Amino acid sequence: MNTPAEGRHRVVVVGAGFGGLFATKALRNAPVDVTLINGTAHHLFQPLLYQVATGILSEGEIAPPIREILRRQDNVEVRLGTVTDVDVTARTVTATAPGISYTVGYDSLIVAAGASQSYFGNDQFAENAPGMKSIDDALELRGRIFGAFELAELETDPEMIDRWLTFVVVGAGPTGVEMAGQIAELAHRTLPKQYRRIDTRRVRVILLDALDAVLPSFGDHLSTRALRRLHQMGIEVELGNRVVGVDATGIEVDTPRGHQRIESMTKIWAAGVAAPPLAARLAEATGAQTDRAGRIQVNPDCTLPGHPEIFAVGDMMSLNRLPGVAQVAIQSGRHAADQIKRRLRGKETGQPFSYHDKGSMATISRFSAVASIGKVRFSGLIGWLLWLAVHLLYLVGFKNRLTTVLHWAVSFIGRGRSERVATFQQVFARRALLQVGPGVVRLGERTVPAPDTPEITEPR
Amino acid sequence: MNTPAEGRHRVVVVGAGFGGLFATKALRNAPVDVTLINGTAHHLFQPLLYQVATGILSEGEIAPPIREILRRQDNVEVRLGTVTDVDVTARTVTATAPGISYTVGYDSLIVAAGASQSYFGNDQFAENAPGMKSIDDALELRGRIFGAFELAELETDPEMIDRWLTFVVVGAGPTGVEMAGQIAELAHRTLPKQYRRIDTRRVRVILLDALDAVLPSFGDHLSTRALRRLHQMGIEVELGNRVVGVDATGIEVDTPRGHQRIESMTKIWAAGVAAPPLAARLAEATGAQTDRAGRIQVNPDCTLPGHPEIFAVGDMMSLNRLPGVAQVAIQSGRHAADQIKRRLRGKETGQPFSYHDKGSMATISRFSAVASIGKVRFSGLIGWLLWLAVHLLYLVGFKNRLTTVLHWAVSFIGRGRSERVATFQQVFARRALLQVGPGVVRLGERTVPAPDTPEITEPR
Repeated sequence: MNTPAEGRHRVVVVGAGFGGLFATKALRNAPVDVTLINGTAHHLFQPLLYQVATGILSEGEIAPPIREILRRQDNVEVRLGTVTDVDVTARTVTATAPGISYTVGYDSLIVAAGASQSYFGNDQFAENAPGMKSIDDALELRGRIFGAFELAELETDPEMIDRWLTFVVVGAGPTGVEMAGQIAELAHRTLPKQYRRIDTRRVRVILLDALDAVLPSFGDHLSTRALRRLHQMGIEVELGNRVVGVDATGIEVDTPRGHQRIESMTKIWAAGVAAPPLAARLAEATGAQTDRAGRIQVNPDCTLPGHPEIFAVGDMMSLNRLPGVAQVAIQSGRHAADQIKRRLRGKETGQPFSYHDKGSMATISRFSAVASIGKVRFSGLIGWLLWLAVHLLYLVGFKNRLTTVLHWAVSFIGRGRSERVATFQQVFARRALLQVGPGVVRLGERTVPAPDTPEITEPR
Repeated sequence: MNTPAEGRHRVVVVGAGFGGLFATKALRNAPVDVTLINGTAHHLFQPLLYQVATGILSEGEIAPPIREILRRQDNVEVRLGTVTDVDVTARTVTATAPGISYTVGYDSLIVAAGASQSYFGNDQFAENAPGMKSIDDALELRGRIFGAFELAELETDPEMIDRWLTFVVVGAGPTGVEMAGQIAELAHRTLPKQYRRIDTRRVRVILLDALDAVLPSFGDHLSTRALRRLHQMGIEVELGNRVVGVDATGIEVDTPRGHQRIESMTKIWAAGVAAPPLAARLAEATGAQTDRAGRIQVNPDCTLPGHPEIFAVGDMMSLNRLPGVAQVAIQSGRHAADQIKRRLRGKETGQPFSYHDKGSMATISRFSAVASIGKVRFSGLIGWLLWLAVHLLYLVGFKNRLTTVLHWAVSFIGRGRSERVATFQQVFARRALLQVGPGVVRLGERTVPAPDTPEITEPR
């Protein structure tokens, strides 16, 4: 335990994603007391969420405890909480946790609360098409994906079997492409010999996007390569398709050829992001502008207008059309920390943040990825080996790297998925599938008779 | 995919715990078609549940998919479902899964539905003192245990800090002893350097039991050894204590010295087991007796009275006062399978089940366990090495053994816990801690004012 030194510069960091965590680490040797506030006790390696949702990695492997990562950094205090308000005049942050709320004062504030899933004004889609932003999301989707095959195996109605074996992924950015690819691999490589009635290779994986390209941020060449690989894998890619409705048993789409309904029990939303409500509050309090996704328009040095002591970094900031990727968050987080350190040393501040694009990559299947580094483009096996190398290097900073390598070996060299648990609750208590009364089961819009003893109790 | 051969003997196995799984495996080369029905898609290695609840292992490591274990056994079909009824005249089993119910006919039936937690008529205790019987339970407890330290760190009220740092385990059998030991190790070895305000070594771990010994089934010698080791670890063992009430903030106990209330936010129930409702239905249908725990009194060959085609095995059967341990389930499951194979070969059946006690063991902390094998008793390091050897040998039959060994190395040689994730839902949506209205937070019985903006939205 340590107690803050009297009169030390107080830095509050909101959010322990890439931006907040790396800002905090960069303040390691600075004469400051850091309070890091996050809504969960774990950092989240978001780019690998899809591997938790599809059974390759355990949640612990991509969500190390923040306290463990920072245990040797004495000048930081980690606090659980969701920040509900910032008073930019009194310079305080208010956060809530279950049963308690608290207020922390700051001299400098780094806001790195990330982005949440955006349904573009259709939040009612969320129940039937969970997003891919948190561990909660990944575990929910893991339960739905593996549960879908179990329930398809039980069905006798061919239409229902097709519904269970149709997976729709909305959004053809890296997360959507990776999810679609992994579901296809699961159905074609891991599961075929494990079912007796259904042929899992009959699965339909449909990847939808409103834009007219997959992975558009990777440029035409890699986008075309990725599309070709997705087609080879049997994934149906439907571009220029706008989702207008999602319910328990299907999804409604406006396509270039008119309206279409796709029957599917499992829908995954990887389409849009929006800044959390905190961004709007901060903008209002400081007079900053926000962009269409709700991100705060920051000064070139990542500060807010008239508030050189407040930084917004990562997915929350709008600056030079920078993409919402981990490297932007890491680098802008470090930039904010550097500015604070300069100020404390009496140096001139206000240096603009300049982003060094280290490249981007997305896996499509095992042994196949696209990667763009500077002006060089890689695809196929070379892209995938690059992906592997970069992730292995990054993981060296964390524990669990050995189990991660083992789990990758199981999944990429073998056919297995080691982390496939769907809990009883997830499968049996899903709202859209719940029994609505004695003798009646509600299944999406269908109502079917239930057996005589509808009381479901958990077996061992 | 295979289709059942016309006219083959049909075996239905209810439950894929130790009893059902090993019965199914023993039927591997028999001329039968097996339908294995289970409420989840995974087998559960129940004796290691406590390691999931305390962050050592991931759920995937102790809950391999049933289909994967049995993927090479062509004569078995695995079906998800909770069995709601057995018609012993028509020889059919009815099961439900979300949105569907189905009926399967049998020629032989092996019922191995295990046991669920028993609150001895006080099921209302469950909400505030979850049991330890399923993956759902272990994940719930993992969220509560790690969440308790997070919320203690935020508290300023000394009484509340004490409540968060007091853990009560009810039941001093192997599961309770192992849970208590692991929580103590967590607090003393893993967490101390990770918190700034609380000293996790101040934790109180209280182990309660209504009986007057810990691990009574291990005999006086080992029971005394175990008690001594628990005391060395600072665990408060309170024997002859009967729990009469559990609420959000504490537990009420009748002790030999009168009534007592223990203030504690985290209660764990490892006290009693009861057969599931299916046992009572089967008993009623066949005229079998049930014992106090609701288990079915079986014939010496594990069949039900008047029904040589129905076997009850494992935790569901009451026979010769056999204990509810994995080996009884495994051996009785195999016995039932053998009886079926004998009948099909035209051999005499009705052989009584004889249990070969391979011994029992319970870990108390790393490097310390008690083990009883035949008449030989081991404790301390030797007991622990035996525990390790037996579990490593057993795990050889499963995937994930390498990651399990790595996770054990992290926890037993190092101080780490690799699998510590508490989801946002688990920590923020716990009913006893929920906000009950704008401006008001309900915390157990206390009502405290909430901050201005009580809406809790999930951050990234």
